Amino acid sequence: MPFNRPVNLTDLSPRLPEIFAATPGKANVIHLNNAGSSLMPQSVLDAQLDHLKLEAMIGGYEAARQKADDIERVYDSLARLINCQRDEIAVVENATVGWAMAFYAIPFQPGDRILTAEAEYASNYLAYLQMARQKGVSVEVIPSNEAGELCLHSLRNMIDKSVRLISITHVPTNSGLVNPVEQIGEIARAHNILYLVDACQSAGQMPLDVEKINCDLLSATARKYLRGPRGIGFLYVRSAVLDQLHPPMIDLFSASWTSQNEYVLRPDARRFENWENNYAAKLGLGACVDYALDIGLDAIQARIDELAGYLRANLKEINGIRLHSRCPRQCGIVSFAIEGRDSGEMVREIVDRGVNVSSSSPSSTLIDATRNNLPVLIRASVHYYNDLKEINRLLEIVSDLSG
Amino acid sequence: MPFNRPVNLTDLSPRLPEIFAATPGKANVIHLNNAGSSLMPQSVLDAQLDHLKLEAMIGGYEAARQKADDIERVYDSLARLINCQRDEIAVVENATVGWAMAFYAIPFQPGDRILTAEAEYASNYLAYLQMARQKGVSVEVIPSNEAGELCLHSLRNMIDKSVRLISITHVPTNSGLVNPVEQIGEIARAHNILYLVDACQSAGQMPLDVEKINCDLLSATARKYLRGPRGIGFLYVRSAVLDQLHPPMIDLFSASWTSQNEYVLRPDARRFENWENNYAAKLGLGACVDYALDIGLDAIQARIDELAGYLRANLKEINGIRLHSRCPRQCGIVSFAIEGRDSGEMVREIVDRGVNVSSSSPSSTLIDATRNNLPVLIRASVHYYNDLKEINRLLEIVSDLSG
Repeated sequence: MPFNRPVNLTDLSPRLPEIFAATPGKANVIHLNNAGSSLMPQSVLDAQLDHLKLEAMIGGYEAARQKADDIERVYDSLARLINCQRDEIAVVENATVGWAMAFYAIPFQPGDRILTAEAEYASNYLAYLQMARQKGVSVEVIPSNEAGELCLHSLRNMIDKSVRLISITHVPTNSGLVNPVEQIGEIARAHNILYLVDACQSAGQMPLDVEKINCDLLSATARKYLRGPRGIGFLYVRSAVLDQLHPPMIDLFSASWTSQNEYVLRPDARRFENWENNYAAKLGLGACVDYALDIGLDAIQARIDELAGYLRANLKEINGIRLHSRCPRQCGIVSFAIEGRDSGEMVREIVDRGVNVSSSSPSSTLIDATRNNLPVLIRASVHYYNDLKEINRLLEIVSDLSG
Repeated sequence: MPFNRPVNLTDLSPRLPEIFAATPGKANVIHLNNAGSSLMPQSVLDAQLDHLKLEAMIGGYEAARQKADDIERVYDSLARLINCQRDEIAVVENATVGWAMAFYAIPFQPGDRILTAEAEYASNYLAYLQMARQKGVSVEVIPSNEAGELCLHSLRNMIDKSVRLISITHVPTNSGLVNPVEQIGEIARAHNILYLVDACQSAGQMPLDVEKINCDLLSATARKYLRGPRGIGFLYVRSAVLDQLHPPMIDLFSASWTSQNEYVLRPDARRFENWENNYAAKLGLGACVDYALDIGLDAIQARIDELAGYLRANLKEINGIRLHSRCPRQCGIVSFAIEGRDSGEMVREIVDRGVNVSSSSPSSTLIDATRNNLPVLIRASVHYYNDLKEINRLLEIVSDLSG
């Protein structure tokens, strides 16, 4: 193992055999595309299969009624995951829907300013631009510091009474960067500015505590580091801001039709949900959160950091590798390019050799990519159920391709 | 069989044994809650189970890539189902989302009038009311005729240049009523008025042809008469109206981020989708549409009409039953009350005795319920995979409860 270096994967060691065995896909493929969608543990798969079979046997509404307690417990699990109240959670179709239901609910006025980060995710930025066209808000990018992190000093200088929203992607899609969400939250709270955190890549990868972050709104998905199903996610809405927001769409679940021309919204965050649910996916979401909580987010983060650190350190040793990472705080996402080679082609090569990685296109983080002259990147994203042998295999392939 | 009457269930007869055998839940329960959510055929269940297992084995993105052709074919199946082009279809999280993405995309101006029907579904009406508050539109209810159908004469008299939208539920949730969507469409087309049809209860129950209906927008769900999964649906958007509409939310799937302050929307109806999908449910949707097309919507409708007609005729013979149905064109939804008995309690009794039925609350169709003084109703909704023996069992129970 030419790439082996001392690493200290202690925390989870006793549980690793059990964790590996509970990940059916691990025997089949080396999966380093956890920032795309992780391999589900058996419990998450079973939660979905069991519920779908039940629906086929007794009917969809009848199955939801039979599993009503389990479905309600999903809210308790999510509340534990991010340290909030269960009535501050909406379970929605995916993180984009959750984020958008929150963002488009903000009653912006012309001249309002939205502050965001350089490495903001394209989907969010597109929504800012739509709001700029529709309502005349301005969208302003908080500069990054030398290390690539959002610059807190610049943020402080940008604050004035016209800042309506600070909206940040916790972990951008295209690098290991972890934005300083807690320090940003202090600033937002001090100035009483609404604060929205896109935790799509961080949920399940590191501890998330909305009290420490001081955010008002936070969205996340199941399929990435939480190891949950595709097509399900959640939104946190702090009770204190609920009534400032107007859900951009309502239905008979989010509101009650009280007389011909009157309605009232639900009193909790579920006013951002609608009547229909994919209950199999919802139960799968509950199962993946329970699994993550059982393992422990601190232990998960520690192992991811060690594995990703090992991958980064060894990639640096390979000639012709350009690592996209400058900041001191990094996570499980490792992105890089091989000099003189097309990243799209390289990804196909690596995948063909049995290692799932993905590519990150400049258009998904256009401002960051433009300012830092980023090409298409190869993205390898590690999780706690990965191991050194798998990472060494990627290193071998990359070494071969760069040679 | 005291309730047996001559019925002519000819069309599907040769295929019934195969259809019954392909419905695993049929051996387990008498399911007359098809207007809630139907029993899935084995092929629909398998499409979901297989894809979820594949995701667990090779990864969620990798599974979507492997099944990309099958996923794309879902659009072809839906286009065949309603007679449109594949690029006029958006597959969305459910019918409510599809309907709302279309409705909230209409650039209403103050003073615009929305015309709708008495038995309009609560979710839609709530959205009208929200739009009335936000944009100052007026919401007007087209009266029903003596038979309970939308009155075309009244509709014609309400038309003027300020009518921005005619929005109709094809089959209301609370009765067998089938609104005359084609005749309404002629009026809408003649006056060049945008026309939105909620086909949530009709899709899969009867032929739907957007050219005959002349609608611009149509939304539907998988879980009801299409016998598909929960948590998936679709929206039809006529190409000719696409550019009049502004998707109420956008992301990097529905739009491309072309430069720091610019974006362009997708050129097709999928601008109403977003990036993330529950692919298992999407493949299940394709499977249920293929299954319905294979059986044939005419044959499906004929058998449903016969079974529902048989149920209505025999309910009328039972003392103390109040049937909610006056109109000549009726479908598979049969709603009624038992004099002097609480419908909610009655539903629980019937379900306890092994027959899945549901209740329909006045709040789900408030205007119809108020004008016609409707109580909570017992709703029995039949499908082509039901049979006389099952309906006779319901009749026996109702007869017993009403005695």
